[in-house]
Amino acid sequence: MEGKEEDVRLGANKFNERQPIGTSAQTDKDYKEPPPAPLFEPGELSSWSFYRAGIAEFIATFLFLYITVLTVMGVVKSPTKCGTVGIQGIAWAFGGMIFALVYCTAGISGGHINPAVTFGLLLARKLSLTRAVFYIVMQTLGAICGAGVVKGFMGKATFTSLGGGANTVAHGYTKGSGLGAEIVGTFVLVYTVFSATDAKRSARDSHVPILAPLPIGFAVFLVHLATIPITGTGINPARSLGAAIIYNKDHAWNDHWIFWVGPFIGAALAAVYHQIVIRAIPFKSRS
Amino acid sequence: MEGKEEDVRLGANKFNERQPIGTSAQTDKDYKEPPPAPLFEPGELSSWSFYRAGIAEFIATFLFLYITVLTVMGVVKSPTKCGTVGIQGIAWAFGGMIFALVYCTAGISGGHINPAVTFGLLLARKLSLTRAVFYIVMQTLGAICGAGVVKGFMGKATFTSLGGGANTVAHGYTKGSGLGAEIVGTFVLVYTVFSATDAKRSARDSHVPILAPLPIGFAVFLVHLATIPITGTGINPARSLGAAIIYNKDHAWNDHWIFWVGPFIGAALAAVYHQIVIRAIPFKSRS
Amino acid sequence: MEGKEEDVRLGANKFNERQPIGTSAQTDKDYKEPPPAPLFEPGELSSWSFYRAGIAEFIATFLFLYITVLTVMGVVKSPTKCGTVGIQGIAWAFGGMIFALVYCTAGISGGHINPAVTFGLLLARKLSLTRAVFYIVMQTLGAICGAGVVKGFMGKATFTSLGGGANTVAHGYTKGSGLGAEIVGTFVLVYTVFSATDAKRSARDSHVPILAPLPIGFAVFLVHLATIPITGTGINPARSLGAAIIYNKDHAWNDHWIFWVGPFIGAALAAVYHQIVIRAIPFKSRS
Amino acid sequence: MEGKEEDVRLGANKFNERQPIGTSAQTDKDYKEPPPAPLFEPGELSSWSFYRAGIAEFIATFLFLYITVLTVMGVVKSPTKCGTVGIQGIAWAFGGMIFALVYCTAGISGGHINPAVTFGLLLARKLSLTRAVFYIVMQTLGAICGAGVVKGFMGKATFTSLGGGANTVAHGYTKGSGLGAEIVGTFVLVYTVFSATDAKRSARDSHVPILAPLPIGFAVFLVHLATIPITGTGINPARSLGAAIIYNKDHAWNDHWIFWVGPFIGAALAAVYHQIVIRAIPFKSRS
Repeated sequence: MEGKEEDVRLGANKFNERQPIGTSAQTDKDYKEPPPAPLFEPGELSSWSFYRAGIAEFIATFLFLYITVLTVMGVVKSPTKCGTVGIQGIAWAFGGMIFALVYCTAGISGGHINPAVTFGLLLARKLSLTRAVFYIVMQTLGAICGAGVVKGFMGKATFTSLGGGANTVAHGYTKGSGLGAEIVGTFVLVYTVFSATDAKRSARDSHVPILAPLPIGFAVFLVHLATIPITGTGINPARSLGAAIIYNKDHAWNDHWIFWVGPFIGAALAAVYHQIVIRAIPFKSRS
Repeated sequence: MEGKEEDVRLGANKFNERQPIGTSAQTDKDYKEPPPAPLFEPGELSSWSFYRAGIAEFIATFLFLYITVLTVMGVVKSPTKCGTVGIQGIAWAFGGMIFALVYCTAGISGGHINPAVTFGLLLARKLSLTRAVFYIVMQTLGAICGAGVVKGFMGKATFTSLGGGANTVAHGYTKGSGLGAEIVGTFVLVYTVFSATDAKRSARDSHVPILAPLPIGFAVFLVHLATIPITGTGINPARSLGAAIIYNKDHAWNDHWIFWVGPFIGAALAAVYHQIVIRAIPFKSRS
Repeated sequence: MEGKEEDVRLGANKFNERQPIGTSAQTDKDYKEPPPAPLFEPGELSSWSFYRAGIAEFIATFLFLYITVLTVMGVVKSPTKCGTVGIQGIAWAFGGMIFALVYCTAGISGGHINPAVTFGLLLARKLSLTRAVFYIVMQTLGAICGAGVVKGFMGKATFTSLGGGANTVAHGYTKGSGLGAEIVGTFVLVYTVFSATDAKRSARDSHVPILAPLPIGFAVFLVHLATIPITGTGINPARSLGAAIIYNKDHAWNDHWIFWVGPFIGAALAAVYHQIVIRAIPFKSRS
Repeated sequence: MEGKEEDVRLGANKFNERQPIGTSAQTDKDYKEPPPAPLFEPGELSSWSFYRAGIAEFIATFLFLYITVLTVMGVVKSPTKCGTVGIQGIAWAFGGMIFALVYCTAGISGGHINPAVTFGLLLARKLSLTRAVFYIVMQTLGAICGAGVVKGFMGKATFTSLGGGANTVAHGYTKGSGLGAEIVGTFVLVYTVFSATDAKRSARDSHVPILAPLPIGFAVFLVHLATIPITGTGINPARSLGAAIIYNKDHAWNDHWIFWVGPFIGAALAAVYHQIVIRAIPFKSRS
């Protein structure tokens, strides 16, 4: 029964769990847990699809920052928020872009567009370290270019005076609250990524991966609804770094560590929660 | 013909009903009504997946209150609603979180995240009493923790002055109107849950359960659009209790019964409507 | 080749049309045009599912008016629209409810919830006249009850002073513009209903009917975005009549004919467009 | 192995790429790259479905401009944006209409509704030049009629004073920024169209084309969120031309070239990116 998951049995009785609602009967016969990805997979480096995936991550993160930072600029520029798409519109821009871009790039690179997602999946051994590093570099470069194009359109003076879409902890909140908001927010996102793309679930129902971009995009939207007033919402270190580099003011740099430490802790917690509690991989029967 | 449903025949003629729109031809051959869940199922208590389901309900309700109460705080805190995500943004936070969380937890616990949903499904004998009680306890604990974390982020004074996201009947409405709004609102939600996860429909079309989170999340969003001005919208006793315990002011406690009695009546009516009218289970031919 | 559709050939050559984008190859082998529904189908009247469908239409239209009129009241009551879900929130309430209710009732009654939809489908001979009349009566009764419950919650004086959600032609627009807006708006809705539930398409791809509620709900949302400033948006005679009866003021009754004539003309045009142009049913080869 | 795609191998090793997340295992056995469309396909002109596709494009673009320009008028007319659906509501009108109309017309014409989309697909040889020219003419005629009906409803004086929904570069932005915004915005749209309707992906998972309207509609919505403050957002030359002809003021005509040159460059870049980088068609192994 290698590669076949069973529910961990706490007691002696083995029985089929009834599925309360929302699920068809769970049969494991078609499901095979993929083996963990090796840390280094030399063959990758000679594959065109490896570089294509990196280019796709670059372009997707470029478009992500272009659309979202431009939306932020449009809202901040206006003296009255009622004449703009509003803060809710900013949340839609972030969540909607993730939905559309994950949909477009899932088949090419897996659709990460976020170093925290890449980090969480690396911890769960879903991709090699080589690939993770390459993705994070490409995401960061894409983010810098995306924010840079917005600065070019707005003009340097306007862009800087409007805050450049950079993440900082808002007045009235402690750095601890900001860090906490980033941790829980990234947990929501990466937990959704794991749940929506669960290999076991995909085996049961082959169109789940295709629907997955919708809850993933919604997770990003929802975290923005909640935490824009606290940190402007990072939960994506490439987005925070790209905006910070192009904005390049001290007060953005002072808080910048929060937008790497928070997302990486949140992603790690989500990976642990999914692998240990939900999938119970360490406790799986080896019979 | 045990376990096979037929339409109840009022007269003598048996004929195949034509499906007006939106449905493929209805064939019952693959469909088998699951037997009602026993009230007590001792085997459950020795299954890891039982406890895993409870943990998933805890985490989901925790995240639900964290995101939604934080969104409420952000809107209430601002002197001008135009500079926030607005009341509509609050409605999106509640509905969107239910969409994402039902999507993530449906395969683990059934994705209730709401004692009223658990109660309605218990009445329809979709899960055991043991499991229902366990879920409701875990949902309530999750809700308290979620609201507590928001209080920690905001600071006690700010949190309390902003109302803490607790449900009360608004000035200008009677308690009867508030109770009615909770009853009809919960009916909308639980009716959608029953319709979207109907076992007969699932048999016909296996991906219905996967799409179900979308109308369920929308139902929550829509009830919030309509009844935030009346009660702030409960339709989820765990959400109301969690916010009330962390807020802990008399005027919230005075109205608190409404947010248990209303949702439970609404859920019961939805269960009766679905089982008696839509599925006609009591009248089914036993041949 | 009875019951099998072919593209009408204008010239002599028969060839397979290439599908430009968004469609899989079109094979007709599984498709069989259902015969037109008879005007009177006596067997229906002795079927429980006929009455169940009527009850489902009643409950759905009841919930539709309850949620939407309550949302309208909440927005109109507030002195500043910024502290409410706003006009956009009203549009979401109408569109979102249609999405959720069509999803819930499609398998029971076809999910019309609108006499104009029933009328359009009757013209296309998708249901019997008996059933159409029964549905329209039940929709209208449901709408009256839904608006009535809102009046009960708000109190008579408040409800009337806030306009009761009744449809009228706004100041600054002629009755002709109002009628035109209702015609085109209902065309958008009923055209979407026909396209989304096309039997030919369903045969090709069995999950289309399940996805259909989303574009149908969006169509209602979009028409509200555009025409709330003109007529408040009817495109549903049951909704307009229910609100008018409960509101019961002369100025609402004076314009009321527009909200029956407009939707019925729009639905008829959509039926003609779909049956004649898109499906080319009258010109189909009879070989 | 004719007609069967392989990943381009940069090095000597051939290996199966692991799919990081969001994708089922990629098997090419069912996939066959369709041959490029001929520039002229004489048979098309004698097919009813060719003309039916043109009519569907006309009607869809008509409804697109009717709903969107009417929404713009409603927002611009009001002295306070809070009493309207707001700028975000305008973005929903554009994106939502594209979602609904692509859903409705995908099976008839491919659901372009936009000369830039038609142009991009022509470059990728997905349709003949004859068909592309016919579509663009019908789209433009539909757009003119749609804007014209809105002018009829509003009255000429009101329509003109409110700007008629015409695209111009906003004060404070250079024409270069406007052109850039149109290029990147159209790239987002046409890249999404290519990704969502990829024939290889469709072969793997037959319902992808049915879901495609959602990310395509969202792409339009997102570009509007970002660039309404810059150009009012064109990314659709038919929409820009239709509004410009009915509005017919010099300042709209002066910028009008931007709304043809920008979208066509953006669409061409998206076609190049998808065909060269993502699909690597020129480098495919011919073994």
